[in-house]
Amino acid sequence: MSLLDSPLRTVAVGAPLFADTLAQQGVAVEQVDWRPPAGGDAQLASQLAGLWTSDVDRANAEALRRVLDARQALVDVRPAGEVVPGLERDMILHAGPPIDWEHMTAPVRAAAVGAMLHEGLASSEAEAERLASRGEIRFEPCHHHQAVGPMAGMTTYSMPVMIVENRTFGNRAYSIFNEGLGRVLRYGGLGPDVLERLDWIRRVLGPTVGAALRSLPDGVDLRALIGQALHMGDECHNRNRAASALLIKALAPAIAGLESVDAVERRRVLEFAGGNEHFFLNVGMAACKAAMDPAHGVEGSTLVTTMARNGTEFGIRVSGLGPEQWFTGPSQVPRGLYFAGFSADDASPDMGDSAITETAGLGGFAMAAAPAIVQFVGGSPSDAIGHSRRMYEITIGESEAYTLPILNFRGTPTGVDVRMVVQTGILPQINTGIASRRAGVGQIGAGLVNPPMDCFTSALRALAAPLAARS
Amino acid sequence: MSLLDSPLRTVAVGAPLFADTLAQQGVAVEQVDWRPPAGGDAQLASQLAGLWTSDVDRANAEALRRVLDARQALVDVRPAGEVVPGLERDMILHAGPPIDWEHMTAPVRAAAVGAMLHEGLASSEAEAERLASRGEIRFEPCHHHQAVGPMAGMTTYSMPVMIVENRTFGNRAYSIFNEGLGRVLRYGGLGPDVLERLDWIRRVLGPTVGAALRSLPDGVDLRALIGQALHMGDECHNRNRAASALLIKALAPAIAGLESVDAVERRRVLEFAGGNEHFFLNVGMAACKAAMDPAHGVEGSTLVTTMARNGTEFGIRVSGLGPEQWFTGPSQVPRGLYFAGFSADDASPDMGDSAITETAGLGGFAMAAAPAIVQFVGGSPSDAIGHSRRMYEITIGESEAYTLPILNFRGTPTGVDVRMVVQTGILPQINTGIASRRAGVGQIGAGLVNPPMDCFTSALRALAAPLAARS
Repeated sequence: MSLLDSPLRTVAVGAPLFADTLAQQGVAVEQVDWRPPAGGDAQLASQLAGLWTSDVDRANAEALRRVLDARQALVDVRPAGEVVPGLERDMILHAGPPIDWEHMTAPVRAAAVGAMLHEGLASSEAEAERLASRGEIRFEPCHHHQAVGPMAGMTTYSMPVMIVENRTFGNRAYSIFNEGLGRVLRYGGLGPDVLERLDWIRRVLGPTVGAALRSLPDGVDLRALIGQALHMGDECHNRNRAASALLIKALAPAIAGLESVDAVERRRVLEFAGGNEHFFLNVGMAACKAAMDPAHGVEGSTLVTTMARNGTEFGIRVSGLGPEQWFTGPSQVPRGLYFAGFSADDASPDMGDSAITETAGLGGFAMAAAPAIVQFVGGSPSDAIGHSRRMYEITIGESEAYTLPILNFRGTPTGVDVRMVVQTGILPQINTGIASRRAGVGQIGAGLVNPPMDCFTSALRALAAPLAARS
Repeated sequence: MSLLDSPLRTVAVGAPLFADTLAQQGVAVEQVDWRPPAGGDAQLASQLAGLWTSDVDRANAEALRRVLDARQALVDVRPAGEVVPGLERDMILHAGPPIDWEHMTAPVRAAAVGAMLHEGLASSEAEAERLASRGEIRFEPCHHHQAVGPMAGMTTYSMPVMIVENRTFGNRAYSIFNEGLGRVLRYGGLGPDVLERLDWIRRVLGPTVGAALRSLPDGVDLRALIGQALHMGDECHNRNRAASALLIKALAPAIAGLESVDAVERRRVLEFAGGNEHFFLNVGMAACKAAMDPAHGVEGSTLVTTMARNGTEFGIRVSGLGPEQWFTGPSQVPRGLYFAGFSADDASPDMGDSAITETAGLGGFAMAAAPAIVQFVGGSPSDAIGHSRRMYEITIGESEAYTLPILNFRGTPTGVDVRMVVQTGILPQINTGIASRRAGVGQIGAGLVNPPMDCFTSALRALAAPLAARS
């Protein structure tokens, strides 16, 4: 008998006596805390009960079908200002739900300042802070512009963005390039090295990768690539080692064959990509965004189409509610492993649009694919498997493209249902990097985090409101 | 409780009644066939008993230490004739133990004919067969020349070989390039396409990869690369998807930066490498060969330093015995999955030097790293884990460089002990490709195979002989 095909397992919920008795008889028992639905809130429980209808189920099936049908390809790189809808020169796109300068944390402000310097909107940090605090810079969420950005997520007019196309629905999603590790803008890193790197990305990396992509007739098939990466130990949020190598493998022939880029820069572009195990992260985020956007706007659907954080608040959006209607709660500090010299006291609350990966059934939802990730975020390989298993309790379906070998190739849990989160009290499991709470420092660790339950209870109330009005 | 940390498991050996009773009580029981030591052969059992001494244990510890201390790097590519010791123009190196033309199978003969045509030793298939059958071509094992070759393994004077250096001991190992899938020489494929590809490998691929490697000051660290690949779902014998991508990631910047190679060929080299998921296989084999060679020649050691097949016989070599002393038995037909239109009736007996990966603790021994491989060789992910677990029963130690995440990062079982194989009756588990038994066809499937027990019993007798002479 194998441990993975164990024929006799019991899940005991609530009173521990029954579990103890079984355990004494040698039966494998998994003890789960029992929580009353809707956390014991009678009004919420009544609203929840009203949402368990076949109409909602049908709407969710339609929304999920759209997610599962996504066929994403990386097709080009262009300056954001040319392609990102509604992006203006004096505008900075950021991660997470809407936020103004006043409410931004120190690392997010630092990233905004760096973005303004890079864009030439200010010529000094002091001037940048002054302009921002006077409201002369427009801050808007990436998610309101078909874009996603990791951590602070700052995206500006002249930055090159990678273009991901969902060929089933024709929609596109955009993301800037990943800058690598160490002191980088997205973690609130500031300094001449940060700005020089951003300049090189704009001058060389973006145009080179763009030219390479335009020489590939079908671009790079991201649905297939992510499916492979999940069989190679990635969960495609906090571990992108395989996906990055596969992306480089796909791009390298075209880059090596470019006559328009000189030998030194061809080499440097591939060294830069190869030196960053998260080179794929931003591409994967755009692939997930491209998959989720068509699922938004299905009337009555309780499927979560966005989870994102701005460093201050965690916000979600729901298919059956408005496209700019966010349900938020305070962003949490992740639990995880810190780099030498840092601890939880140094950590910023969670930030970034990267939770779009979990929204689409990857990241923390796919941790069973990535047992080696525990060396980075803490816990044991069996914890990693447990996280994926638990997510089936709050998701509407399973991926057809992304499967978990260790769970006998079961599809990843996909499509968070607001109802199931409130019913079970189980929160989505998110893998994430940890930024310093201080400006200019950068990444200090990696770990796990959950959204606040408030996001889901307030979304549930909004979903229930039309029913109450009708009855 | 997690399935992987299950507190109550019982291994029942022999009589099944006890196991049934436990199973009725809900206890996880793993039933293992009981075999009498040495298969019930009293003389062999007595010889085996004489080898369980602290002298042998010490010799094995020394041999294992040499294996574990290997630090391998891929450093260069050169024509075989320039670097492979003892290789002559009229010589063809083949996989496995020594064999003459008369005893070769049809696919191995076809590969030899192709090698002769490629090398210009014959101008037609008929002439090649005539020369070979008259003994005018010298066939010698790759393993007698510090080389390894997959499947038929044919290696000739002008073929480019990759050079792997073991920096701890200064020894080198060599391997030709992997040709890719489909009709290829190593599987006994013959035809103009096969010869054209070999010619391009000699003219373009070899020199290009060589020039790229010479521009990397430290070459490519294969110990680190293999360690990473095992955390990315490879076992580095029958699954090399991650290792190949990592190798391409390491080489691509240098190839892209070559001014001496034109744009079309730079692109083609990286497309060729990227189009072959076994691009790394031959490199990994040379890395394993470079690790095992220093462990040969430790007096009294029962550690297996080579496992290899020539399509007719499976042969092993043992550290404490002579470098050209092989212990052989008939090569077996693998059990596995066949490509559409083929079955076990079409299969050649097992062939190739690639079992050097299992000899060094990879391949079938590391299958727990590669649950997704079961889609290629058959079985379930729990079977894959079971194969690795079982190999701990016949190995002297555990790797320090190569670990298995799903077994809580336990080192791979390393260093097959002839004594433990004969004692337990457990045979080394080898992953392998399956060739057609007919000349010119190529690969028809992939699966699992074991050496014949005869290799180990005859080696045990040879190891016991000096003790008998002394007593």
